Amino acid sequence: MTETAYDTDNIFAKILRGEIPSQRVYEDEAVVVFMDVMPQGPGHTLVVPKASSRNLLDADPSTFGPLFTVVQKVARAVRKAFDADGVTVMQFNEPASGQTVYHLHVHVIPRFDSIPLKPHTGAMENPEVLARNADKIRAALGS
Amino acid sequence: MTETAYDTDNIFAKILRGEIPSQRVYEDEAVVVFMDVMPQGPGHTLVVPKASSRNLLDADPSTFGPLFTVVQKVARAVRKAFDADGVTVMQFNEPASGQTVYHLHVHVIPRFDSIPLKPHTGAMENPEVLARNADKIRAALGS
Repeated sequence: MTETAYDTDNIFAKILRGEIPSQRVYEDEAVVVFMDVMPQGPGHTLVVPKASSRNLLDADPSTFGPLFTVVQKVARAVRKAFDADGVTVMQFNEPASGQTVYHLHVHVIPRFDSIPLKPHTGAMENPEVLARNADKIRAALGS
Repeated sequence: MTETAYDTDNIFAKILRGEIPSQRVYEDEAVVVFMDVMPQGPGHTLVVPKASSRNLLDADPSTFGPLFTVVQKVARAVRKAFDADGVTVMQFNEPASGQTVYHLHVHVIPRFDSIPLKPHTGAMENPEVLARNADKIRAALGS
């Protein structure tokens, strides 16, 4: 595998800079959380460190404590917000693994008994559905 | 979702206590790494904190920095050991998400272009294959 440099114009970098809108549900000094616009299930959320790295392989290890502390907060929140039976956490490195945006991010997906994950089809979710789901997660995070 | 207490007799707790053998590839004060005996691909490795929690939802947040620092080490090592094109990192919470052992663990799986993950069939890998793959990962971690 060849090493590829971080591209400052990737879509998540643009979201972090506020150049592209997103349904943000949480932000602290190290991490931003927003809705995946192509969800593999209702409430599919992305937890994204502000620090720049292509993926987990080239990240500064100091990223991981704050990042996964927020992953836990969000996992608990989506479980509550959607009355989920479980939560799947996934992180992809390079195209062979399914990575499509080259800024480190962690997928947090509410899961329900006997309902498989939807495939990553590239279909955009209705913005009103995303906004409604974001509201539910914000409420769960705040309580 | 109901909360379920940590079961000290889960199979990973027994592996951590040395009551059940495993192909260990790494250990430090906080984390143990061993081969998944039902791999979804060659080199499928599990990164397991020594601290007891059922999964990510009930873990102490102080677990995450040391745990994912080792996940990164192992991800880099399996990429090198298997000349992989990418690495998938997954962590499952509760049966609806695919969790089958109730001690927090992170899956680290080398990935190759155009080769999907094998389903989690429950088929045990040949111990000699696991031992050979563990040797490759130990060598990559040591170099």
